[in-house]
Amino acid sequence: MSDLKNDRLLRALLREPVDVTPVWVMRQAGRYLPEYRAKRKRAGDFMALCQNPQAACEVTIQPLDRFDLDAAILFSDILTIPDAMGLGLYFEEGEGPRFRKPVRSAKDIEELTPVNTTSDLPYVLDAIRLIRSELNGRVPLIGFSGSPWTLATYMIEGGSSKDFARIKTMAYSNPALLSVLLEKLAVSVTDYLNAQIMAGAQAVQIFDTWGGVLSGKAYREFSLKYMARIVAGLNTQAEGRTVPVILFTKGGGGWLEAIAATGCQAIGLDWCQDIGEARARVGDRVALQGNMDPAVLRASTTAIEAEVATILQSYGQGAGHVFNLGHGVTPDIDPQQVAAFVDAVHSMSVNYH
Amino acid sequence: MSDLKNDRLLRALLREPVDVTPVWVMRQAGRYLPEYRAKRKRAGDFMALCQNPQAACEVTIQPLDRFDLDAAILFSDILTIPDAMGLGLYFEEGEGPRFRKPVRSAKDIEELTPVNTTSDLPYVLDAIRLIRSELNGRVPLIGFSGSPWTLATYMIEGGSSKDFARIKTMAYSNPALLSVLLEKLAVSVTDYLNAQIMAGAQAVQIFDTWGGVLSGKAYREFSLKYMARIVAGLNTQAEGRTVPVILFTKGGGGWLEAIAATGCQAIGLDWCQDIGEARARVGDRVALQGNMDPAVLRASTTAIEAEVATILQSYGQGAGHVFNLGHGVTPDIDPQQVAAFVDAVHSMSVNYH
Repeated sequence: MSDLKNDRLLRALLREPVDVTPVWVMRQAGRYLPEYRAKRKRAGDFMALCQNPQAACEVTIQPLDRFDLDAAILFSDILTIPDAMGLGLYFEEGEGPRFRKPVRSAKDIEELTPVNTTSDLPYVLDAIRLIRSELNGRVPLIGFSGSPWTLATYMIEGGSSKDFARIKTMAYSNPALLSVLLEKLAVSVTDYLNAQIMAGAQAVQIFDTWGGVLSGKAYREFSLKYMARIVAGLNTQAEGRTVPVILFTKGGGGWLEAIAATGCQAIGLDWCQDIGEARARVGDRVALQGNMDPAVLRASTTAIEAEVATILQSYGQGAGHVFNLGHGVTPDIDPQQVAAFVDAVHSMSVNYH
Repeated sequence: MSDLKNDRLLRALLREPVDVTPVWVMRQAGRYLPEYRAKRKRAGDFMALCQNPQAACEVTIQPLDRFDLDAAILFSDILTIPDAMGLGLYFEEGEGPRFRKPVRSAKDIEELTPVNTTSDLPYVLDAIRLIRSELNGRVPLIGFSGSPWTLATYMIEGGSSKDFARIKTMAYSNPALLSVLLEKLAVSVTDYLNAQIMAGAQAVQIFDTWGGVLSGKAYREFSLKYMARIVAGLNTQAEGRTVPVILFTKGGGGWLEAIAATGCQAIGLDWCQDIGEARARVGDRVALQGNMDPAVLRASTTAIEAEVATILQSYGQGAGHVFNLGHGVTPDIDPQQVAAFVDAVHSMSVNYH
């Protein structure tokens, strides 16, 4: 790993020894940073920022210039794949993502073609190449995708949802039809992540934001099965190294053993799970990433340090822990509190290695 | 229990043998029923319905006249206590509950007085007495309250919340202040449930709707601790029987052992938890209530029956299971599907007893 000046993240994801616990922050390039808001304003809307490799590169690196983070993560959106499939992604102010053409019928699903990343999403690969070049080995770059289930929720509901009424009705009434959609998405995500790895992503994370709204049985059938296929289909050897795969199911704390059995290298935890109990359950099969409640960043520096200490102690001695929040940092957070968080992880974790 | 014609619910909650698995439905008296909507229209707003004992009694019994349910549950709202404390509860169409005077400062919290149910919430006790009289032993009546943590979220946020920013900031920045509020609420809920039991409630459920948004440590400190105090403070012997206490923390599947240790008789499960795995974890310490995803009621009768069969099989042979949904039935559900659900539980569970 001679070209990588800081390889803590990759080492921890592969459960190899590190000097201190590596840390990054979900949504670390985002609206809580004034320099991000300024760039976003100039770029126009959110998707314009994602689709401009130079701009995406710039905002990807912004948090690294402020904080002592151990990883960069591609600035993009989880919904690039359905957008490339022709659903027409747009963002309503304060409403979250929406699709102009949601997928509702068997015909809608049959007409979808899995994405070919090179031809359909070249801007993502261009951004990755540019970021790698700009990073110049400073820290590793994480690529990512939404999970098939999570992408399908947005595609069928047409946007964010509270009760997932449409997709759950399909899941229980016509599971065979839903599986056709999930299969196309699994093929697409596999292609997408393999292309990201080829372009230079050094670790990849699958965001299963909505897997936790399912029963255990439905989770295994409609979400985990497809993530497992993706893991099996990834070419995780690149540049002479293993590219670790992180699966993050928000609300998935009950299913850690099953997630570990997919063959992924690491599991992302939300903050509801005690990380020490999670470690006891998965043993040395996978690394764990997480898991401070993002809300703690609204509290005092003392409170942040206390919570970091609790989580480090809960995980305990040894390798295999990547510190993170349990979900994305929110726009109302003071960047100074993120700095306090990152520094607390590094300084307090020395004793655990 | 000579006066009770159907005591399946109470027997199952105490893990005593039953002929078939009892079933009731969270929010069984509600907007999915046309007769409820008609009554609600005549009564005026939602709180007018709760505060009129005759009307509350009528809507409590409506679902029993349609479905072969094994319990009635008091028609009321979880926010009666903060309303009685003077916060001014109101309902914005499509927005959920709101408070005119949310609790934000130390002064706000200090000025709150725990409720005296007899003088502050007489309409709840009048409704219970009337319902018991009308039921005339047909099925047992369940009383309920919100948990201190859940009540506090609405009181501090001023209504429903997505990220619980205000209360979590207080939890992490000023836990001592939050504990003053939670203590007053625990005293209030204890008084409220004891008064409900005195008035005739034959089982009680504490709805901890928002305990699941906390980390495990914060859950124990800010939610479970106060529920445990309430359980310890309840007079659960009435009419020569034990009044079982059900604790329902939505999203609390990770903490079942700790919940069982409070001394409650039963744990309510949301649909994310496999009920068989939950049973293996809690053993014979408590009964379990749940846990079908309410979304299944949108699917076909065949799908409902398949899901009921899966859950019955997962729980397995023997006593200690009360069937329910994992959360409240939603307004869009066809009452015929609720009938199919209730009948499936009764007919398919014979083989498990």
